Amino acid sequence: MQRYFLPHQTLITQPIQLPEEQAHHLLTVLRGKVGTPLEIVLADHCVYQAEVNAIDPVPTVMIKERLATDAELPVQVIIACGLPKTKEKPELIVKKGTELGATHFVFFESERSISHWDQKKVTKKLARLEKIIEGAAEQSHRNALPTIEYLPNLQAVVNLKADVKLVAWEESAKQGETAILVKTLQSLRPGQTLLALFGPEGGITEAEIANLKQAGYLSAGLGPRILRAETAPLYFLAALSYQLELLNAGKSH
Amino acid sequence: MQRYFLPHQTLITQPIQLPEEQAHHLLTVLRGKVGTPLEIVLADHCVYQAEVNAIDPVPTVMIKERLATDAELPVQVIIACGLPKTKEKPELIVKKGTELGATHFVFFESERSISHWDQKKVTKKLARLEKIIEGAAEQSHRNALPTIEYLPNLQAVVNLKADVKLVAWEESAKQGETAILVKTLQSLRPGQTLLALFGPEGGITEAEIANLKQAGYLSAGLGPRILRAETAPLYFLAALSYQLELLNAGKSH
Repeated sequence: MQRYFLPHQTLITQPIQLPEEQAHHLLTVLRGKVGTPLEIVLADHCVYQAEVNAIDPVPTVMIKERLATDAELPVQVIIACGLPKTKEKPELIVKKGTELGATHFVFFESERSISHWDQKKVTKKLARLEKIIEGAAEQSHRNALPTIEYLPNLQAVVNLKADVKLVAWEESAKQGETAILVKTLQSLRPGQTLLALFGPEGGITEAEIANLKQAGYLSAGLGPRILRAETAPLYFLAALSYQLELLNAGKSH
Repeated sequence: MQRYFLPHQTLITQPIQLPEEQAHHLLTVLRGKVGTPLEIVLADHCVYQAEVNAIDPVPTVMIKERLATDAELPVQVIIACGLPKTKEKPELIVKKGTELGATHFVFFESERSISHWDQKKVTKKLARLEKIIEGAAEQSHRNALPTIEYLPNLQAVVNLKADVKLVAWEESAKQGETAILVKTLQSLRPGQTLLALFGPEGGITEAEIANLKQAGYLSAGLGPRILRAETAPLYFLAALSYQLELLNAGKSH
């Protein structure tokens, strides 16, 4: 069923007017009519059964009841990526990363980033990525809309707060390091915030790693194969889901 | 370091002429000279240190010694996908699936496949996908080149042999099933062949699931979020790597 995210804080018992974009989608893609069922996610991260209340003059929906579905990871996950070279890579990262449960995305200019987003570009690029995130969140039945920001350099990322901080480092993988990711994911407690940092195509420099380690980052390998810049965060998120949503679920039964 | 796959069965102590494509890559992308170091993977799935022996009249390489690196999963993994709608999706599946360790890819026409590859298309499409696989295998430092085939229907997939067979089914996920994937991955023994089957955009039909279950397939959920057709195999491969290459590695220490 089609799911729309609306900015309202809590359940409203009056018909809600759909924002322009969703109204357009409802009319042209869904071909919605009065009575067409929908799922609406409000800012409380709850999913509500709803239906189209009116089409003319503007589409409105009426929320009926709260549903018990929750598709969120038990932890908050920040995915911070050194800016990749092509525009397709950030798009793939936020699209697939949203499906895989990320809470927040950060792109930052790292030492080996070849591309650069100037201030004018940033606003436009983030707006485009936010649209991709919204589409992926609707489709994957998320309860929360991931957010995104751009930071000018690694130091700004280091200033971000998180309970647990990891950096995926190719050298860790080359040295056959296999324990850190497992130990870290196994030690997470519900509600914690995990920040995972990934380099651009050329990787993270030694100086950046030293800076990160000093700031409390653990450096982890993601298995024996060399993963591309855009594949590493997806591997990480899938491993996180497997550990927290499948393995841990089995243990608590 | 650049890695090339060559079809030779075993170590050869004479200079080997590079096939046309690699020769072209060596000259135009790498700008190789006599003495440029390379890694060569032979059909024995071993990696060899090598260097460029001559450039004129045709590029040849001399293999020097076998390296001990192995980036292969301890099991053989067949990824079978119902033919997706767009050409980008099979490309993404084989590219990322190669990075994530798959052994063999199968695309088949399932009940809800919208696109169709006629015989003329099949040869061309497979050739293009093979090139993508080769590039991804070189880049991710695989020891073996994944293979690919097209099968006309689900019955042809059902006839494939494997020690363990799984189907990722959205309904399993919706019912909150979380145990099958974990149990299956934990029970794998080195050298076994695992076949994992995924539907196209519209999913697998009830009739197809019944057919697969009768053929010994287990139906598994991949967590609480709805994954797109091309994301599900990547989630599966990352979870497999996490279980076999990180979690199990920790246990044996």
